[in-house]
Amino acid sequence: MLESKVSRIQRDIETMARFTATPGLGMTRLSFTEEDKKTREFICSEMEKAGLHVYTDAAGSIFGRREGTQKDAPLVMIGSHFDSVKNGGNFDGPAGIVTALEIARILYENNISTANPIEFVAMIEEEGTRFGAGLYGSRAMTGKVPHSEIESFRDADGVSLGEAMEKFGLDSLKIKDAIRNPEDLKAFIELHIEQGPVLESESLDVGFVSTIVGITRYDIEIEGRADHAGTTPMHMRKDALLASFEVAKVIHDAAYAKGEGTVGTVGKLVVYPGGANIVPGKVFFTVDIRSVEQGNIEDVVKEMKETLEYVSHQMGVSVHMEQKLAIPPVHLADEIRGIFEEEAIGRNIRYRHMVSGAGHDAMIMASLTNVGLIFVPSKDGRSHCPEEWTDYEQLKKGIDIALGAILRLSEANI
Amino acid sequence: MLESKVSRIQRDIETMARFTATPGLGMTRLSFTEEDKKTREFICSEMEKAGLHVYTDAAGSIFGRREGTQKDAPLVMIGSHFDSVKNGGNFDGPAGIVTALEIARILYENNISTANPIEFVAMIEEEGTRFGAGLYGSRAMTGKVPHSEIESFRDADGVSLGEAMEKFGLDSLKIKDAIRNPEDLKAFIELHIEQGPVLESESLDVGFVSTIVGITRYDIEIEGRADHAGTTPMHMRKDALLASFEVAKVIHDAAYAKGEGTVGTVGKLVVYPGGANIVPGKVFFTVDIRSVEQGNIEDVVKEMKETLEYVSHQMGVSVHMEQKLAIPPVHLADEIRGIFEEEAIGRNIRYRHMVSGAGHDAMIMASLTNVGLIFVPSKDGRSHCPEEWTDYEQLKKGIDIALGAILRLSEANI
Repeated sequence: MLESKVSRIQRDIETMARFTATPGLGMTRLSFTEEDKKTREFICSEMEKAGLHVYTDAAGSIFGRREGTQKDAPLVMIGSHFDSVKNGGNFDGPAGIVTALEIARILYENNISTANPIEFVAMIEEEGTRFGAGLYGSRAMTGKVPHSEIESFRDADGVSLGEAMEKFGLDSLKIKDAIRNPEDLKAFIELHIEQGPVLESESLDVGFVSTIVGITRYDIEIEGRADHAGTTPMHMRKDALLASFEVAKVIHDAAYAKGEGTVGTVGKLVVYPGGANIVPGKVFFTVDIRSVEQGNIEDVVKEMKETLEYVSHQMGVSVHMEQKLAIPPVHLADEIRGIFEEEAIGRNIRYRHMVSGAGHDAMIMASLTNVGLIFVPSKDGRSHCPEEWTDYEQLKKGIDIALGAILRLSEANI
Repeated sequence: MLESKVSRIQRDIETMARFTATPGLGMTRLSFTEEDKKTREFICSEMEKAGLHVYTDAAGSIFGRREGTQKDAPLVMIGSHFDSVKNGGNFDGPAGIVTALEIARILYENNISTANPIEFVAMIEEEGTRFGAGLYGSRAMTGKVPHSEIESFRDADGVSLGEAMEKFGLDSLKIKDAIRNPEDLKAFIELHIEQGPVLESESLDVGFVSTIVGITRYDIEIEGRADHAGTTPMHMRKDALLASFEVAKVIHDAAYAKGEGTVGTVGKLVVYPGGANIVPGKVFFTVDIRSVEQGNIEDVVKEMKETLEYVSHQMGVSVHMEQKLAIPPVHLADEIRGIFEEEAIGRNIRYRHMVSGAGHDAMIMASLTNVGLIFVPSKDGRSHCPEEWTDYEQLKKGIDIALGAILRLSEANI
């Protein structure tokens, strides 16, 4: 049974970890920067060593192609992204890059031929850290990048996405060249860190994602009246914070009641004017609701809106609400999840099926082909911070399952 | 029956309103500044025109003295403060200054002799805007200014209170000279704007304060765990904001249940890290509890502490609590309030007895002598803002009651 090697996995992760704009303060690798360039060179070099034909698509994602024996067979793709958040960790993205590199090496070393071609991919700007939108590499492949984005999305220094691409030798007018034909693909596999506490808390090695949650976001502003905290009797107040509490509590309770697979969060909340002796006059807060079932999201939103109406009438506050995001849940391919499961059982790896509470390139790729997404544990559930960590032995188990799935999906001759 | 004149009241308020460091943006008159100096000159000039002997005490408060006919009789004092908050209004403080000036003028014009001497006072640094502590003029009279305060309390530019005093020709080492002997005082009267909505909402002209509430303040920090809002199931979270809601709600409900005269406020609340997709890891908030009864404050604090303990156990968060202020309630003189009431009835002025939810110099003076505090309405209950307003006709009614009380307390010969 073919297996990945921990030493090489560790070496790849540690090598890529060096290409950060914030040494000692975690991973900061923004798209089309010096750190991007160095990482790109490393990935291309490793791909070439594994005998792959390396090319860059119109969006700037790196591909290493391995031909199949069967003429015109659809390709199997595997990979993840190599950009990062600011001061993030070494695994978010790179765990999936090393998965691709390691599998390419194993196929090369063992001289394995496959019926279907395989493409190993390192996608860019998934986090959206530099230009805001994110999931850029996968959206380019699915034709979901409007020209307006390339022209008008700019980084903190005012550089547009298009300008940054040109500096890297990419012709931004040719972005549509990155689009893939669904008929040309058989499957897409991604391995990613969980970024949550579930696998670790259940002492499991891997998780197989059945659904990537839908996300609905609102910005809410509740306006009451700023009054003197000493001289305004309780019954004469219009306390915007108190009204916000009622709404936030309902969002929490409604999401909780839906059970696993649904979450609701008020993560940002700002009080105006914010003085110890002033009744809060205005509160701004964000609402983030996610679920595997769109109906659950709609139910929580409904309860939220009812409560907003209730506090508006009962507490005399005014309410402004703006929907900022509405992405429906994405169900991944059951067939591929079945393959993962058989591989896990065959290799005696502890697993569970689970949902992904965060968005990934896999979510976009699901509009193009059959997608499988493997999670490996995040220590203490932490991510997007320098402490982000996955044990290499566990990462190896995830890679071995991906390897097994690739061999089967590409109809390897072993 | 002697009466004040609206035209002069309005002129005084409008004159003092010109001495602001922020023209067009409300009243900003900090202690020992150019604006202070100009206001001081105006007040001294008006006092002298009213035949008063003008002097400044060791703290920098201005006094205009009118002798009585009875040898060694204790004096009656009336006045308020003339400093302001930043970008405040034209009435907080000056309403009481014009009360003193107008009464001095009426006594002078009508050539009224009184058995007791009367001192008209304009106190400084009540708000504490420049040096932080506040109630400085009245604390100096009651011996409650430690030398350490004069040496170490500094303004935003690093100038100490003592240094600012020296620049105004005051010897800060002689602060104890400002102390008054309780035997030398018969009564202190202050007129102030309500800074709340009660009088206006009940269509009343004046309020007579029975008690100035006690104030207890806490800073509270609740620490949970910052997690990814998408990948962390509801039951695995330690949401510091949610825990804070529970505490704030109990403070509100417990204060509300005590009825009029007790308030509880969470006015400042800051969420860390404060991202839309991050479960709040830490929340800092302020608690301000006020009541006419110390027992009520203690009851609300008890419920708050029980809830902090509850959330700490139930939600797995850690709690840090620091008491920042603990001032007991001050009951004012019933006799003087009786005089106010008789004057209001005699003059057909609509009144009520009430509590003061804010601290005033009157609160400090109550440790020295019998104190009476008159409130006049604040339009829309607003204060400490440029919109702060009291109708001159209503201010006149408050001044007339103060005038009547001064005549009776000083045993005027009319």
